[in-house]
Amino acid sequence: MRLRVIIPAMPDPNHPRFSIVGGGLAGGLFANCLAREGYEVELFERRPDPATGRVPAGRSINLALSMRGITALREVGLADEVLKHAIPMRGRMIHSPTGQTVFQPYSKNPEDAINSVSRAALNRVLIEAARARPNVSLHFDTRCVDVDLAETKARFAHEETGEYISSTGDIVIGADGAFSAVRGAMQRTDPFDYSQSYLAHGYKELTMPPRADGSHAMEPEALHIWPRRSYMMIALPNPDGSFTCTCFWPFDGPHGFSRLKTEADIRGYFDQHFADAVPHMPTLVEDYQRNPVGSLVTVRCAPWHIDGRIALIGDAAHAIVPFYGQGINAGFEDCRVLDGIMREHAPDFRRVFEAYSQERKPHGDAIADLAIANFLEMRDKAGTMRFRNKKRLERTLDALLPQYTPLYTMVTFTNIPYADAVARSERQDRAVAICAGLVLLVLLVVVALLAR
Amino acid sequence: MRLRVIIPAMPDPNHPRFSIVGGGLAGGLFANCLAREGYEVELFERRPDPATGRVPAGRSINLALSMRGITALREVGLADEVLKHAIPMRGRMIHSPTGQTVFQPYSKNPEDAINSVSRAALNRVLIEAARARPNVSLHFDTRCVDVDLAETKARFAHEETGEYISSTGDIVIGADGAFSAVRGAMQRTDPFDYSQSYLAHGYKELTMPPRADGSHAMEPEALHIWPRRSYMMIALPNPDGSFTCTCFWPFDGPHGFSRLKTEADIRGYFDQHFADAVPHMPTLVEDYQRNPVGSLVTVRCAPWHIDGRIALIGDAAHAIVPFYGQGINAGFEDCRVLDGIMREHAPDFRRVFEAYSQERKPHGDAIADLAIANFLEMRDKAGTMRFRNKKRLERTLDALLPQYTPLYTMVTFTNIPYADAVARSERQDRAVAICAGLVLLVLLVVVALLAR
Repeated sequence: MRLRVIIPAMPDPNHPRFSIVGGGLAGGLFANCLAREGYEVELFERRPDPATGRVPAGRSINLALSMRGITALREVGLADEVLKHAIPMRGRMIHSPTGQTVFQPYSKNPEDAINSVSRAALNRVLIEAARARPNVSLHFDTRCVDVDLAETKARFAHEETGEYISSTGDIVIGADGAFSAVRGAMQRTDPFDYSQSYLAHGYKELTMPPRADGSHAMEPEALHIWPRRSYMMIALPNPDGSFTCTCFWPFDGPHGFSRLKTEADIRGYFDQHFADAVPHMPTLVEDYQRNPVGSLVTVRCAPWHIDGRIALIGDAAHAIVPFYGQGINAGFEDCRVLDGIMREHAPDFRRVFEAYSQERKPHGDAIADLAIANFLEMRDKAGTMRFRNKKRLERTLDALLPQYTPLYTMVTFTNIPYADAVARSERQDRAVAICAGLVLLVLLVVVALLAR
Repeated sequence: MRLRVIIPAMPDPNHPRFSIVGGGLAGGLFANCLAREGYEVELFERRPDPATGRVPAGRSINLALSMRGITALREVGLADEVLKHAIPMRGRMIHSPTGQTVFQPYSKNPEDAINSVSRAALNRVLIEAARARPNVSLHFDTRCVDVDLAETKARFAHEETGEYISSTGDIVIGADGAFSAVRGAMQRTDPFDYSQSYLAHGYKELTMPPRADGSHAMEPEALHIWPRRSYMMIALPNPDGSFTCTCFWPFDGPHGFSRLKTEADIRGYFDQHFADAVPHMPTLVEDYQRNPVGSLVTVRCAPWHIDGRIALIGDAAHAIVPFYGQGINAGFEDCRVLDGIMREHAPDFRRVFEAYSQERKPHGDAIADLAIANFLEMRDKAGTMRFRNKKRLERTLDALLPQYTPLYTMVTFTNIPYADAVARSERQDRAVAICAGLVLLVLLVVVALLAR
């Protein structure tokens, strides 16, 4: 192991020390996984300590936690604690332009739900659990400024004092998100395949506060969608009775963010396209004018590691667009899978990271593709009769055929690896088409026989 | 124009000053294009001044200059000077494992040739022509360390003194190659689509010196290929009587670079697979052991500019693998096209760069795809009977049908934009298939009539 040469003070070659760059969701969970296995962990996070309450306005505040994420949390004993803060969403509530609503359950099983949780609450649970471990040290307000891959060191600047500190671990885990500094350094190595691509759509968050009595202004146990072909709005419930609405619109063009400038523009547009939501959004105009438009990027790379010294998890390895509600679930699944491989092959970390990168990379690509495809589905088709019939057919087949599981169900309510779920769904679709053909043929024969 | 706000000392708003990052081939040519139009130009290059003769061992030393490159050179009056240093190659010479050779002309026109020129000679011509212009200032040994996109400034460190200098122009042109620092800064802007992907093959250069009498050891007016399915070697002639041989092999595996370590390994392998070349390569083992294995990367990005202030040309915008011999031709064509758009729309440089990026990007993608496809063709098929028959059919159609031009001819011997050439080739292939079907049908009818 190259480590032993570079870092003379390594206390125990069988138990290298870990430095995690990024104390968001994937980094926070993986710190807990490592700590439970007895590894020494130091965690560096750019943002302030969530315990201080200084939560900066950040990225999307709602997440849809489903089976994969819950399974990973359960392995470190945190699932129940997290689900206390969650609101189950059992299906999509589709809002037509005229204000009619249709509810589409996510699964034949009424118990199956995706869980709306706030990023901040989830992060707090993970950080507090890590803080309670004696072998984890936490560093906040530390921004990664440089990663020395050859020396396996990350350097950080303190956001307030400006002081520089270096990581001291033997292994660096890059859990620093879609714009990862660790991956940025890896990108300059040869060979490292990398791509980033942006959608022509951005997103803007708006608020729907609770009713006067504190209750939700719409059905709370649903993910609300206003699909309008080339643009859409969605809303997820929060435990405080509010909803967070998110507009996914093009940046420019006739339905683009840039077109709405004045109060009259904004009111007029929402009255025309999202009429039934407007009465519940008293701060619509202020929200719209104040809140930024975020970008939607897909990042792919390979490999996800360097030797047995550096590895990427979560968005740093595979940033995806949010339309399958799988970003955090994919990141947590990385942690669970990597943890499992470590238990099998540690302390041979070269083998651990090679196996992890090879196993997970195809599934990262699969969920990236699915997320983009689901954007088109939610935006263009969710409101159409054909889509509703397709979903109904899927539910019928699911109920009738024990072998048949809809793709959405496999992705959301099982731990079947993403690419395997896609392959199985394709097999199912072919089988259903063949069966339908055979049934038609038999019917034709019967009709022909009867008509003789 | 945003420039006027940022740079108060701009002497003439209709004639902004240009800073070119990178004085290689694309940067060298574009400096000449700009200088001829009367713009002030400063050119920064990491390597030493070629006039000093300190030419560092660098990248591939041969290039295949063809129509597009020559057209661009002709527009600045440098084509004849460059072609003095070139050796025309009129076709491929295919070497079989048993040492048999077959010559395949590139075109029905025996005058059509691609031109083997050395990178150093070509660069020298461009730099000396730029130096002779009063409005060009040249800076060598200056490595770009930082690009401030907001301020339209590139910063450089002098390779020997370590001193820092900044560009002073109003517009920055990134001509700094596949690992462009200018593009690296653009990559961190939003939205900027970017991808880099490496082949599993690398390359290593070897030398075939002249015969004792100074003549070439093989036919000089040909590009020599030893196609061996999963790996290959090629050789290009140099004016001094030598050939530069390049092995394109996988990094690892049974035919990989990493497998050959000892002198016996190397000799044994070459004797087995490239037997007819070995007698002409007296320094084979030293070359093999000394020379590095280079990587083959494809880079794509979009857009190729920021406002009217920053633009990318050549490999910085579209690094491609070398298998269509088009890298330098594509880069020179960028210069010619951008120059043409400037003459039309300057000083509205926002419009200039937008038009340039939109027009050229599809052609950059097209040649990147073609180069990868040609790698497979040269490596896997060039030695097969089927490939030879296909090439023969193409030449026959080319000779018989005035409408028909083979894709290779359009790419190499015309200035038809790459993507247009691909589209036309696809139309031709469909038309040929339909005609062949009709001819077959007519023949069948004739045979049927005769057989009555």
